[in-house]
Amino acid sequence: VIPPDSPIKDLPTNLDVIAARKRLSGVAIVTPLLNAPQIDEIAGRRVWVKAESLQRTGSFKFRGAWNRLTALKETGDAGRGVVAFSSGNHAQAVVIIMPADAPDAKITTTRDYGAKVVLYDRATEDREAIGRKIQNESGAVLVPPFDDPFIIAGQGTSGAELAEQIAAYESDPLDLLVCCAGGGLASGISLAIEDQRPRMRVRSVEPAGFDDFARSLVAGEHVSNEQQSGSIQDALLTPRPGFKTFALAQSRFGPGLAVTDEEALRAMALAWRWLRLVLEPGGAAALAAALFRRDAIEGDAVAVIASGGNVDPARFAEALATLD
Amino acid sequence: VIPPDSPIKDLPTNLDVIAARKRLSGVAIVTPLLNAPQIDEIAGRRVWVKAESLQRTGSFKFRGAWNRLTALKETGDAGRGVVAFSSGNHAQAVVIIMPADAPDAKITTTRDYGAKVVLYDRATEDREAIGRKIQNESGAVLVPPFDDPFIIAGQGTSGAELAEQIAAYESDPLDLLVCCAGGGLASGISLAIEDQRPRMRVRSVEPAGFDDFARSLVAGEHVSNEQQSGSIQDALLTPRPGFKTFALAQSRFGPGLAVTDEEALRAMALAWRWLRLVLEPGGAAALAAALFRRDAIEGDAVAVIASGGNVDPARFAEALATLD
Repeated sequence: VIPPDSPIKDLPTNLDVIAARKRLSGVAIVTPLLNAPQIDEIAGRRVWVKAESLQRTGSFKFRGAWNRLTALKETGDAGRGVVAFSSGNHAQAVVIIMPADAPDAKITTTRDYGAKVVLYDRATEDREAIGRKIQNESGAVLVPPFDDPFIIAGQGTSGAELAEQIAAYESDPLDLLVCCAGGGLASGISLAIEDQRPRMRVRSVEPAGFDDFARSLVAGEHVSNEQQSGSIQDALLTPRPGFKTFALAQSRFGPGLAVTDEEALRAMALAWRWLRLVLEPGGAAALAAALFRRDAIEGDAVAVIASGGNVDPARFAEALATLD
Repeated sequence: VIPPDSPIKDLPTNLDVIAARKRLSGVAIVTPLLNAPQIDEIAGRRVWVKAESLQRTGSFKFRGAWNRLTALKETGDAGRGVVAFSSGNHAQAVVIIMPADAPDAKITTTRDYGAKVVLYDRATEDREAIGRKIQNESGAVLVPPFDDPFIIAGQGTSGAELAEQIAAYESDPLDLLVCCAGGGLASGISLAIEDQRPRMRVRSVEPAGFDDFARSLVAGEHVSNEQQSGSIQDALLTPRPGFKTFALAQSRFGPGLAVTDEEALRAMALAWRWLRLVLEPGGAAALAAALFRRDAIEGDAVAVIASGGNVDPARFAEALATLD
């Protein structure tokens, strides 16, 4: 029996993903599943790319945020206001506490959406404590970026779409590569495919040196990253897995993968050229794993989530410069 | 009565678009209809963007080419081989005769797809004559880039999709802005929306100084461009409207629009930032018209086709450099 104050109580199921799809219907973009022969050639197998960079606000984060806020309306809590913390993508969808070293584009855009932005230092400050302080002072609802059943279920809707889309093309078992920070996206997707495509398995992709999720899966318990910053894959630097997300992952995920910043930049460039997608470094991590970790992947085909495309022009120009 | 050798015989109808959709079903990408509040703000109205840059081969041209080639199979002509001329997007979908000043990315990619590429000089040579010569020598089927009922109907499938997609959001009459070279895309779309959304109207968008279609509509007869080159909107430099496309346009199109190269570059940059789309200069022309010709457009909302995204990295970097 799970005690009522356990951080792993209220784990979502695929029923919550199905409910989230109803809330998101006609609101979120049904993002396309793309592929390109030039990408397949480099990867050595067919690569299916779910383009969540085309989602409203430029990342999958809109799905969880909308699901969470719509649920607040249903329970009558919407009038209290909302507090959230995020490295940028979740913030643009809901809004607030952001690391001071987030890309300018994410901070500016979050303010453009009308949010009050509170910056903190990744190395010395605790964003969860700042969130609780603001929540206590304002009475607002704290919306966590990933460790929440509504957020996880909302992100999972991308996996439900992918499972339907890929069924038109593939019948074989497939690795499904999903970038991982706190694990909301990957764990939500694992709920959907467990029901819809049970022979597929989710595998986490993280920045090299920040693979807390992969190491936690091996260890069977929460393991933290040693560093808090130092990768351009800024969306993927969460210090440790979430409690709910890790509880879901333990019985569902395959072995995790990690990619370097150089590989992420190269994947951004190749996605620009062959898929005409704009990806941020963290958003290209799963594609980078498909392209550059081919020996660690099984099957004739692989699916990846291209999770976001909020990036500074200078960083993007850096990626383009890797092209011949 | 139209004489049997008339260039305007065999005009396609929406029934041909419907047949093309069946041929393209499960093959072409159903490209998403996107919008972003930041784009709406600049344009002064809601802007719906049909992202054909995400189509296979990076432009809408795949639709017409696939429809044409599938029809060849149906008539038993597929074994004869295929000859085509194109500034690059059509060529990547079918293959051959290209202007020597086409972007490197288009020439290289066309060869990557396995095509034999024949280059010609836009200013001094006639690509149609070169095509006929190769056709006579090889017995291959000449596939024109736009003035063909199967090509027009294939391109029109993007309009059929848009009409369905936009019905979820908009009930008002709308201008639908479509870039125009030979007019295959715009005239095909006009067939689809005439049936599905009769209060919408197609309006051509061309590079400033190359607005042969707009001027032909005003004149009521074919008018040619004075120049053959000199715009970075390389996909839109066809010297004059097609016969079939113009015949369809005369009773269906609203007044044409034109945009400068600087406006196209700026639209590329804004599409990159707010829609996370990779557009080439000509592919951004219709969006540029929505953004920078607001007084010439009617209604609270406008739809545009973002037609292609095959562009050299250096040109793309030039567009990004226009961002603050």
